[in-house]
Amino acid sequence: MAAAQKHSLLVVGSVAFDSIETPNGSVDDALGGSATYFSYAASFFLAPRLVAPVGEDFPEEHRQMFARRGIDAAGLVTLPGQTFRWKGRYHRDMNTRDTLEVHLNVLGSFKPELPERFRDSTHIFLANSGPALQARVLDQIRRPELVLADTMDLWIESERASLLTLLPRLDGLLLNDSEAKQLTGDDNIVRAGKAVRRMGPKFVILKKGEHGAMLFINEEVHVMPAFPSEEVIDPTGAGDSFAGGILGFLAADDQPAPGRLREAMAYGTVIASLTVEGFGLDRLKRADRMDVEARLAKFRAMLSF
Amino acid sequence: MAAAQKHSLLVVGSVAFDSIETPNGSVDDALGGSATYFSYAASFFLAPRLVAPVGEDFPEEHRQMFARRGIDAAGLVTLPGQTFRWKGRYHRDMNTRDTLEVHLNVLGSFKPELPERFRDSTHIFLANSGPALQARVLDQIRRPELVLADTMDLWIESERASLLTLLPRLDGLLLNDSEAKQLTGDDNIVRAGKAVRRMGPKFVILKKGEHGAMLFINEEVHVMPAFPSEEVIDPTGAGDSFAGGILGFLAADDQPAPGRLREAMAYGTVIASLTVEGFGLDRLKRADRMDVEARLAKFRAMLSF
Repeated sequence: MAAAQKHSLLVVGSVAFDSIETPNGSVDDALGGSATYFSYAASFFLAPRLVAPVGEDFPEEHRQMFARRGIDAAGLVTLPGQTFRWKGRYHRDMNTRDTLEVHLNVLGSFKPELPERFRDSTHIFLANSGPALQARVLDQIRRPELVLADTMDLWIESERASLLTLLPRLDGLLLNDSEAKQLTGDDNIVRAGKAVRRMGPKFVILKKGEHGAMLFINEEVHVMPAFPSEEVIDPTGAGDSFAGGILGFLAADDQPAPGRLREAMAYGTVIASLTVEGFGLDRLKRADRMDVEARLAKFRAMLSF
Repeated sequence: MAAAQKHSLLVVGSVAFDSIETPNGSVDDALGGSATYFSYAASFFLAPRLVAPVGEDFPEEHRQMFARRGIDAAGLVTLPGQTFRWKGRYHRDMNTRDTLEVHLNVLGSFKPELPERFRDSTHIFLANSGPALQARVLDQIRRPELVLADTMDLWIESERASLLTLLPRLDGLLLNDSEAKQLTGDDNIVRAGKAVRRMGPKFVILKKGEHGAMLFINEEVHVMPAFPSEEVIDPTGAGDSFAGGILGFLAADDQPAPGRLREAMAYGTVIASLTVEGFGLDRLKRADRMDVEARLAKFRAMLSF
């Protein structure tokens, strides 16, 4: 690497084997999980650090892929048992899915302990997990500069108090539009987004799947459509790829973050659009930084008026 | 008016009394209908021409409102019977609604005959109606420069052949995303939009409600989110206001249309966002061109990165 990086990016999340059925085909045991998609997306910009548990069945080839990609997997800990497995089926419109099987396996009892040299990370992504566990990770970081967390309906319902305690500790919160409505009880997405932001995070990014995303920062609202894909093969990992593009771009950048957030979201958007054009990491693996830049330029052009 | 207009804009559609129930309130017999919303939106830019039938119950005050607004209602014909009435109820999320009552009344047997001086109109909006009737209107126009038509699921299903005959005569077709999927049998919205365009119109605009719109022109795809509204009071008329903003802007402009389409869509978007912030025309009536320009500037800023 040419120069020492000013920033360092850490993700704490899951590594999984996903079995996915779609109207156009299926795949078994594809490498997936939030930390996988996030770190792969971020690695277009810098060398991210990954913390996640895997089981004794996790093959060496995936570790080698992380290494080749510049992903620092010193936090990929092998625990007794099997790797987390998820099985799902997408409906015909590709926007909704049924979870057919979940085997948490080693993820079920995982208590993240960060490697010592990861504790100076500046940019942190707390991938979707219980808010108490996310807080526990945050406690181990010495001086975080930008912390983004993902959450989901399950925690909003079952660990609301912990989540509300976590929110003021975050720079950004990432959640689905329906989850923002659930968290706030407001059916208007603009009011709901603003209300979530007033719960503590400096900014809130609402994910709307194929309809794009919205950013709430200060009292401002920004909107960004998704990049229109003609070939949606497998939407799995789109949200974590989006997050990886956002934080990868911000961490690789020496300018202060807030003003660059929308550009970061645009990078996240185009990388997520690549992710969904193949099963698992297939399409991302065939892309390089130039492909990302080319798609970003196209996205910018199609949004201008 | 300062100078003779180079272009003239005609809408042929409906004038209605709408009774609307929403989670936040209700209204009875509000002035509505496609031609009403379209022409009111377009009148921010120029003086549009309106053709639609009303019944003997249609009050003089509404005619006066059209006149004050610069809407040329020479084509507002009074037929024996009652004005078209629609009654609907919006669900809690404001994105879906149930039609409770439809009384076509005078609209049911309406066969548009354009006033002689309307037949030289350059810009034409064929609001949603049967494609055979839309074609009949088009036959009466001497030299149309830009023809935009709206359609709906009912015609795609029941008058498919007539619709397919009409499409090559159009410059633009406006329809919902679900209708594009229905018309083409393709569940991918990008492929569906391109396929509709290949059926004949020079461009296709897909409406996605609160998720914005997509434009398909040549082999290009453009995406535009909706303007985020905190107060969605009544979505009725949003689509026709969107169309009115688009064609109003284009017809008032001396530059050739295609290159300005996205800017026109942005105007349509912000005017539609005003429409939904009140029942019927309430909010639009409190807006002037400066409000539209201010919201457009805000929209442009929130989309830039």
